[in-house]
Amino acid sequence: MSFDLDRYTLERVAHVSDALAVFCPPDGSQLREAMRYSLLAGGKRLRPLLCIAAAEAVGSNIEGVLPAACALEMIHTFSLIHDDMPAMDDDDLRRGLPTCHVKYGEALAILAGDALHALAFAVAPTHAPLFAQACGQMCQGQAEDLEAEGKSITLGQLQRVHAHKTGALLRASVLAGAYGAPAHQQSSLSHYGECIGMAFQIVDDILDVTGDDATLGKPAGSDLKHDKATYPKLVGLDESKRLARAAEQEALEALEIFGQSAEPLREIARYIVERNT
Amino acid sequence: MSFDLDRYTLERVAHVSDALAVFCPPDGSQLREAMRYSLLAGGKRLRPLLCIAAAEAVGSNIEGVLPAACALEMIHTFSLIHDDMPAMDDDDLRRGLPTCHVKYGEALAILAGDALHALAFAVAPTHAPLFAQACGQMCQGQAEDLEAEGKSITLGQLQRVHAHKTGALLRASVLAGAYGAPAHQQSSLSHYGECIGMAFQIVDDILDVTGDDATLGKPAGSDLKHDKATYPKLVGLDESKRLARAAEQEALEALEIFGQSAEPLREIARYIVERNT
Repeated sequence: MSFDLDRYTLERVAHVSDALAVFCPPDGSQLREAMRYSLLAGGKRLRPLLCIAAAEAVGSNIEGVLPAACALEMIHTFSLIHDDMPAMDDDDLRRGLPTCHVKYGEALAILAGDALHALAFAVAPTHAPLFAQACGQMCQGQAEDLEAEGKSITLGQLQRVHAHKTGALLRASVLAGAYGAPAHQQSSLSHYGECIGMAFQIVDDILDVTGDDATLGKPAGSDLKHDKATYPKLVGLDESKRLARAAEQEALEALEIFGQSAEPLREIARYIVERNT
Repeated sequence: MSFDLDRYTLERVAHVSDALAVFCPPDGSQLREAMRYSLLAGGKRLRPLLCIAAAEAVGSNIEGVLPAACALEMIHTFSLIHDDMPAMDDDDLRRGLPTCHVKYGEALAILAGDALHALAFAVAPTHAPLFAQACGQMCQGQAEDLEAEGKSITLGQLQRVHAHKTGALLRASVLAGAYGAPAHQQSSLSHYGECIGMAFQIVDDILDVTGDDATLGKPAGSDLKHDKATYPKLVGLDESKRLARAAEQEALEALEIFGQSAEPLREIARYIVERNT
């Protein structure tokens, strides 16, 4: 029987969404409402899924990694809220809804992002060193991305920006799930995380060119608007697709030391490259 | 021989400043430059001092709490950078220098704040639960403060706002310094932290009325400009001063279980109420 990623995802995403609502309950404040608006707006929940799938790969209990999985989604959401701000990427639409600052104003959006950032460390303090490092790299990547707008950069520089901006947190998601596993397993999963991080960003760049707003849930063509360096711009659409496939292949190879238990991670790697949203 | 707070402060602040520069070294990036600009701009270093003084009160080693002391200053600085943004308090001057967004632009200011927030947890992961809780309350307090602008609130509500906005991190500073100390000592220090937090905020409100830009290093009259609820506005200047003294007194009483080792904490409580900056 082949592995059913849709069903796997549905079950686990429901589990994560329930847990997120519990970790970030309403308290009557506007701030909390803004946090919940962005946190519970849906989305692919890719980081929690990676965390849980990595836990399953190394034979860990799903319940045990749920706080880490939720913390990762909080960190991801905090970064989206801040990146969408007018001073940054100036996006009005996210996950098919008005962005946090459009809905609640800029002041509350900054604070909702900050509070989700803090909540992540409250929920998963064990992973503070790993997550703090990933957050730092994410900020660094976003700053490099903004700095590169309108400039011509090399493919190596672009890969570096993306490794920081997107790759660091995806890698941390896998590593958090594999917390406590033997070193050689963690090392393989770390490499897997880096490869899918690269694949993810290449496909993101491709979708910004080929996708439409409704499917993406955010404005397509945003990279072009900001004159951002992207894979399609630097190496063309066909070569970008080839690079994404190569990164997927390398990710799958990194999982060779695992048996059937890593099937969810393998399917996620395939999904990342084949997705249209 | 009486205790010399100026000398005590000078020595420890120099120690903290050196450590901050090491924990946040230049890396050639603009983001790091913006982080260092705000982090190393001086300031009273009150939170690191409280952390170190609490460590001394319970007989702990100063070197051991230096990471926590630095993390507290990073968190404080991150909150200042974000609070100064145009969408929030819209202040141009901080610690006698142009604010981070005036110097580096809003995008980099948001990211520098975020990156300092993350760095704090990288530097002091042991304290993640304590610091994350304090950060969350700080964001909550800032949101409540903004929400209360132009509205009339009660003294009880004002105290609640300040307990979140300023008190939580001051209390966390003392508790981080007393990490590992016996429960009754921690409990006394927690109470001390709450009292000086209240005293600090009352005096801040008073100074906003009675101080001048040059001495404060930031614009005086900022609360009035934003039509903020303050102690002088709610209870008058004289009653505000009386409340600050009462909070100082309660803070000193909380330290009665300690001997000579808590002298720095006692002097800090006095300084908080007597300061003119």
